[in-house]
Amino acid sequence: MKKAVLAYSGGLDTSVCIPILKENYGFDEVITVTVDVGQPKEDIQTATKKAKLISDKHYTIDAKDEFVNDYIFPMIKANAMYEGYVIGTSMARPLIAKKCVEVAIKEKASAFAHGCTGKGNDQLRFEAIFRTTDLPVVAPMREMNLTREWEIEYAKQHNIPVAATKSKPWSVDENIWSRSIEGGKLEDPSYIPPEDIYEWTTDPTKAPDKPEIVEIGFEKGVPVSLNGKKMKGVKLITELQKIAGKHGVGRTDMMEDRVLGLKARENYEHPAATVLLTAHRDLEKFCLTRAELKFKETVDSAWAELGYMGLVDEPLFDDLNAFIDRTQERVNGKVKVKLYKGSCIVVGRESPTAMYSEELVSFDGKTLDQKDAEGYCKFHGFQARLYKKLINK
Amino acid sequence: MKKAVLAYSGGLDTSVCIPILKENYGFDEVITVTVDVGQPKEDIQTATKKAKLISDKHYTIDAKDEFVNDYIFPMIKANAMYEGYVIGTSMARPLIAKKCVEVAIKEKASAFAHGCTGKGNDQLRFEAIFRTTDLPVVAPMREMNLTREWEIEYAKQHNIPVAATKSKPWSVDENIWSRSIEGGKLEDPSYIPPEDIYEWTTDPTKAPDKPEIVEIGFEKGVPVSLNGKKMKGVKLITELQKIAGKHGVGRTDMMEDRVLGLKARENYEHPAATVLLTAHRDLEKFCLTRAELKFKETVDSAWAELGYMGLVDEPLFDDLNAFIDRTQERVNGKVKVKLYKGSCIVVGRESPTAMYSEELVSFDGKTLDQKDAEGYCKFHGFQARLYKKLINK
Amino acid sequence: MKKAVLAYSGGLDTSVCIPILKENYGFDEVITVTVDVGQPKEDIQTATKKAKLISDKHYTIDAKDEFVNDYIFPMIKANAMYEGYVIGTSMARPLIAKKCVEVAIKEKASAFAHGCTGKGNDQLRFEAIFRTTDLPVVAPMREMNLTREWEIEYAKQHNIPVAATKSKPWSVDENIWSRSIEGGKLEDPSYIPPEDIYEWTTDPTKAPDKPEIVEIGFEKGVPVSLNGKKMKGVKLITELQKIAGKHGVGRTDMMEDRVLGLKARENYEHPAATVLLTAHRDLEKFCLTRAELKFKETVDSAWAELGYMGLVDEPLFDDLNAFIDRTQERVNGKVKVKLYKGSCIVVGRESPTAMYSEELVSFDGKTLDQKDAEGYCKFHGFQARLYKKLINK
Amino acid sequence: MKKAVLAYSGGLDTSVCIPILKENYGFDEVITVTVDVGQPKEDIQTATKKAKLISDKHYTIDAKDEFVNDYIFPMIKANAMYEGYVIGTSMARPLIAKKCVEVAIKEKASAFAHGCTGKGNDQLRFEAIFRTTDLPVVAPMREMNLTREWEIEYAKQHNIPVAATKSKPWSVDENIWSRSIEGGKLEDPSYIPPEDIYEWTTDPTKAPDKPEIVEIGFEKGVPVSLNGKKMKGVKLITELQKIAGKHGVGRTDMMEDRVLGLKARENYEHPAATVLLTAHRDLEKFCLTRAELKFKETVDSAWAELGYMGLVDEPLFDDLNAFIDRTQERVNGKVKVKLYKGSCIVVGRESPTAMYSEELVSFDGKTLDQKDAEGYCKFHGFQARLYKKLINK
Repeated sequence: MKKAVLAYSGGLDTSVCIPILKENYGFDEVITVTVDVGQPKEDIQTATKKAKLISDKHYTIDAKDEFVNDYIFPMIKANAMYEGYVIGTSMARPLIAKKCVEVAIKEKASAFAHGCTGKGNDQLRFEAIFRTTDLPVVAPMREMNLTREWEIEYAKQHNIPVAATKSKPWSVDENIWSRSIEGGKLEDPSYIPPEDIYEWTTDPTKAPDKPEIVEIGFEKGVPVSLNGKKMKGVKLITELQKIAGKHGVGRTDMMEDRVLGLKARENYEHPAATVLLTAHRDLEKFCLTRAELKFKETVDSAWAELGYMGLVDEPLFDDLNAFIDRTQERVNGKVKVKLYKGSCIVVGRESPTAMYSEELVSFDGKTLDQKDAEGYCKFHGFQARLYKKLINK
Repeated sequence: MKKAVLAYSGGLDTSVCIPILKENYGFDEVITVTVDVGQPKEDIQTATKKAKLISDKHYTIDAKDEFVNDYIFPMIKANAMYEGYVIGTSMARPLIAKKCVEVAIKEKASAFAHGCTGKGNDQLRFEAIFRTTDLPVVAPMREMNLTREWEIEYAKQHNIPVAATKSKPWSVDENIWSRSIEGGKLEDPSYIPPEDIYEWTTDPTKAPDKPEIVEIGFEKGVPVSLNGKKMKGVKLITELQKIAGKHGVGRTDMMEDRVLGLKARENYEHPAATVLLTAHRDLEKFCLTRAELKFKETVDSAWAELGYMGLVDEPLFDDLNAFIDRTQERVNGKVKVKLYKGSCIVVGRESPTAMYSEELVSFDGKTLDQKDAEGYCKFHGFQARLYKKLINK
Repeated sequence: MKKAVLAYSGGLDTSVCIPILKENYGFDEVITVTVDVGQPKEDIQTATKKAKLISDKHYTIDAKDEFVNDYIFPMIKANAMYEGYVIGTSMARPLIAKKCVEVAIKEKASAFAHGCTGKGNDQLRFEAIFRTTDLPVVAPMREMNLTREWEIEYAKQHNIPVAATKSKPWSVDENIWSRSIEGGKLEDPSYIPPEDIYEWTTDPTKAPDKPEIVEIGFEKGVPVSLNGKKMKGVKLITELQKIAGKHGVGRTDMMEDRVLGLKARENYEHPAATVLLTAHRDLEKFCLTRAELKFKETVDSAWAELGYMGLVDEPLFDDLNAFIDRTQERVNGKVKVKLYKGSCIVVGRESPTAMYSEELVSFDGKTLDQKDAEGYCKFHGFQARLYKKLINK
Repeated sequence: MKKAVLAYSGGLDTSVCIPILKENYGFDEVITVTVDVGQPKEDIQTATKKAKLISDKHYTIDAKDEFVNDYIFPMIKANAMYEGYVIGTSMARPLIAKKCVEVAIKEKASAFAHGCTGKGNDQLRFEAIFRTTDLPVVAPMREMNLTREWEIEYAKQHNIPVAATKSKPWSVDENIWSRSIEGGKLEDPSYIPPEDIYEWTTDPTKAPDKPEIVEIGFEKGVPVSLNGKKMKGVKLITELQKIAGKHGVGRTDMMEDRVLGLKARENYEHPAATVLLTAHRDLEKFCLTRAELKFKETVDSAWAELGYMGLVDEPLFDDLNAFIDRTQERVNGKVKVKLYKGSCIVVGRESPTAMYSEELVSFDGKTLDQKDAEGYCKFHGFQARLYKKLINK
């Protein structure tokens, strides 16, 4: 019996995939897998309900804690930004794919399926994981060039419930860390996005008139407390999402280079991520040496690129994590961040493991004297001086 | 006759240096040089007036255009940030020093003098330039360990006017690009800075209630217009400084690694810089290839480090500029940036030389087809898959 | 009329492509292009003769000077090594492809064809250039999975002359810069290659018993003289190839990562390249600053990676060249290299633009004094000391 | 009582330091420390004997195993080269300094002393470690500008035995890993060094006429066997030193950038190091992914730079080691290297953890098909093509 395991979101695309996989690809059974990485609860519920109607077997898997502990925390430690933006979707895909692999092994499936098109990044991220098993991967959306109209008609014929709500003119992806909005009019890079593309962040002009200072506590580079209260990751991010979102913090509008080489205009919301990454970077500057900070820029950039491409199985990824984890042992302390009408600014920090203390840096005349700097000055730029003499000869 | 050329700001430190250089260092004549890189006009006037009273010969040199064209524009093209902050002071120092060198050659001086202490960066930046001449450099502040009280007393004895205004409990440096504030209570990293350290940026809570969108036009990576009006650099920055400052945009609070290795808490204001750098980076993402963007990160980081250290004579600096200038040929267009109560966000961009056009990226089935992506997917993460097989053997 | 432009080597694969393109792909005419980048003369002659028999129109294009001036000289300036080996084939492919594009435009061709399989790098290098035109590319070897036996039979049926010589059990690619040998028994990474895979380099045990010192003169990073005689590039490389080859210099045996992700065992010969790159790197260390040398490592590595992938049209490639060319202005002088039974060692160098002269570096007590180093020492490793104190607290 | 701990080599410089420290610096007692890191046995014996005559207390500490396990093995794993040469002296200095620190703590010393001048690197390496203790460091050679003649006379007056042998016109430093030769006529970069500067490597023209293949076994990146025999580090290096030295392998002649910025001509011998590093790099290419190899280049380069500067206490050093160690888990296997009259070439390798196997890379038509490469080709250089279209518009 030919069984396909389908990564299932509950949307129109992945729903029509179910009968297509049987009718066009000859599968006998389609097993759907919906992974909860912090999407809106309604989305999970809808997907679960719908799957029970139309798929042969369904799994809803709550992976929120795993997503936070194994993907988001490393992201924070790596200050993960790709081309200057907070990556999010890219890190959820490998986890979803890994859960599908677990189901496929259990169910002795003969193939994987996903509903991605051939233009985006997600096909690459899913398949990088799926293909570790040597099972084939089918991608009906990529191969059949379907239109939305055709899909709705096909859904009706196959008794697939179609959401009554008028489809938004842009497409959205959400997880506990970030929300992306793309497509439609937003594709025009010069089009100023309307306020209603945003759901997590208040319009800054309607945000509270009073700034709010939040304090994030870190242990070994990982956020462990919010305003003095110890919290587990999922709770901390969820609470902070609300606070920072209320102040309109955490929006990105950018041109992004997709893996295949196309540039695309993307909009993102990520209130908690903005606060946590801002605070984390500030604390690192307090606790790490200059040499570490400088080299870690390169490490973080390589990490984020692998993350963006969904290559979490590349051994380099964990090699980088070994570097990062060693640096983070000393990234402990508290950072105060001021949120106000879209802005997010660090205003103070303290740490038990700072590379800084009045005692340590005092020029006491015993170990260090201001005059010692003269010798340093004489060699600073020494070769630049030789060069000037050479070219002025 | 022994003549010293002194970089002169008009403040207490450099003023007391004048008699000290004669009495303690045996100079016959002290020639003061004040370079206008966009400090407040009153500061330049005060310095000029004071110098005429107490120095043997004085030069006030307006270098604002040179600073903008030869230092700030390259900084914009290089997205120059050191440890995440907008460098400013560091780039003015070499220019001031170069002007002093010109004076020294003209005046046949026998030495340079500056008023920097032995703890900071500026001694290194000044001397990197001064020492290209092989003339000696003297630094009374570094060598004599003077207190402010002693200096005031000494000034009185030598008829040096001392500003009546009570000294601020922090020290400030300003040029057309940025304003730095450090020292006093701010040295405590956890101390939340009071509003009155800021002069260029409105308290965001008192900024206008209506967001403002400004449009910056770029040619070859350099800003050339503001809201559609062509403007020379000094004017554009000055105008934008006011607009962005009014909206409370452009503050930084950070721990910074000085060249000698000490960490210090620094606060900065740089409203125009924040807008221009934000807009420039956005436009680059529109116009450069992914490979260029990624490699340019490394180039920019090296540029900023040399800039921070004042090593503009290092030949690597101009090697990097050769790379950067070639990339900037295609960085043309307009970027819209929204300013509001401290936040600064890009909301749209257009360019005649974008690496993007609907026509270029269409999957038209002739040159590109969605199905082509399948082959790419099969090789994406290929070695990561081999690795997984290897470790699971 | 459907015309295909075929990159033609004269070998069996590209020869059988001619009738295949007509019979299986429906082309009316096949135009063959053989580009002379320094292969053995007999190969060019054979290809030309054969093409006249079996293709509809043929071009033999001598591109040796262009290859040396526009590809090899930049390679030398970039010290181009990929994973530690001298790249060669990879840089000839784009040039061959560009010549094919010129022919295609002139002949108003409707497609390109090449004889590469789907496992190697060359398909990627050819197509990266071919596809800039939007013309389709066909690759019969990749699509038809032909065996050598089938090809020989097919050739006979189509009156294609097949070389009588027994085919070597490995495949070879040659140009003026390097010769690669791969396949057959060599695929086993532990197999010690027999002497007869090498044609350019004497077995070191049979090389002359007397070492020979050659002197290479460079101007702006480019070799311009050999043993004091000014020579144009093609001549210099050809002469040096003989000398260094005679001494058994310039062999590589390595595992290499192909672009698609497969590792392959490769063997190379490149006597002149080894001498020129060794000499050039030595001269750079004499003429560039430490900061330049260090950053140029990163630039060179990025250059070589693009070169290896055949991406000479990527704008980053020329951005890197802008950096490199500026550094090379000061890479002038002469380097003496000793060749002996497989070894190649620099034994002396001189330069009019060295960053070194006894005069410049003297500690004369005036500009520099040994005691000045003490201040430098006190700050060397300053943060490392803070760290030790912190962790020992 | 004022006690100084002196790093003692037994040579003239450090010997005259003993009375100088008492007479000129006021120390009551000088404790000498000689650390055996693999110098010639006679040197250690001479130093020990001499110290017993002239110092107040002496320690001879055998640190060869520690040097190999804690310094040389990490160097191999990091492929440690600075500006293309095998670092050696630089890694022994921190270990010698750490032994001095241990003695200083035990003896409750009040200062450290070394015999380095103010021009070289060693002062920086010693003091980076000494100064972690906050004890002062004195450097008579740097401060007193002594000539050799003066020192000999002074030695006689103080009953310090002076070696009868005529001093060589160059200075030498040796440890188990490498031997450096510098100074005298060698300072002229164009001077071809005479054979008698070398002691570890046979003149290649006098080396055996038969090539020799040695096989190095590695476990986790560390050499563990020679020609199939398991050996501890010190033994393995010592044996290999003899074999490779006999074949004239492992000489370097280069211009090197010292830490303070001076370039200097240096000559080195390091037969075992050349073989081990060559073999190790080859094995890495067999066992690591391309992404790992590429990023590790950057890591290795940073590692070597810290090593060269003696900054082994910088936390970045161990952060890099964390990265490196994780990669090395899979660097296992055997490499065959052919030694012959100065040349050293890999001729084969095998590994139980290679990223390569016929099975893994087969295009079997099931998981991979040659045709799949077409899709990859279409996206290879995609942005470069957009760029060409843009600039040709």
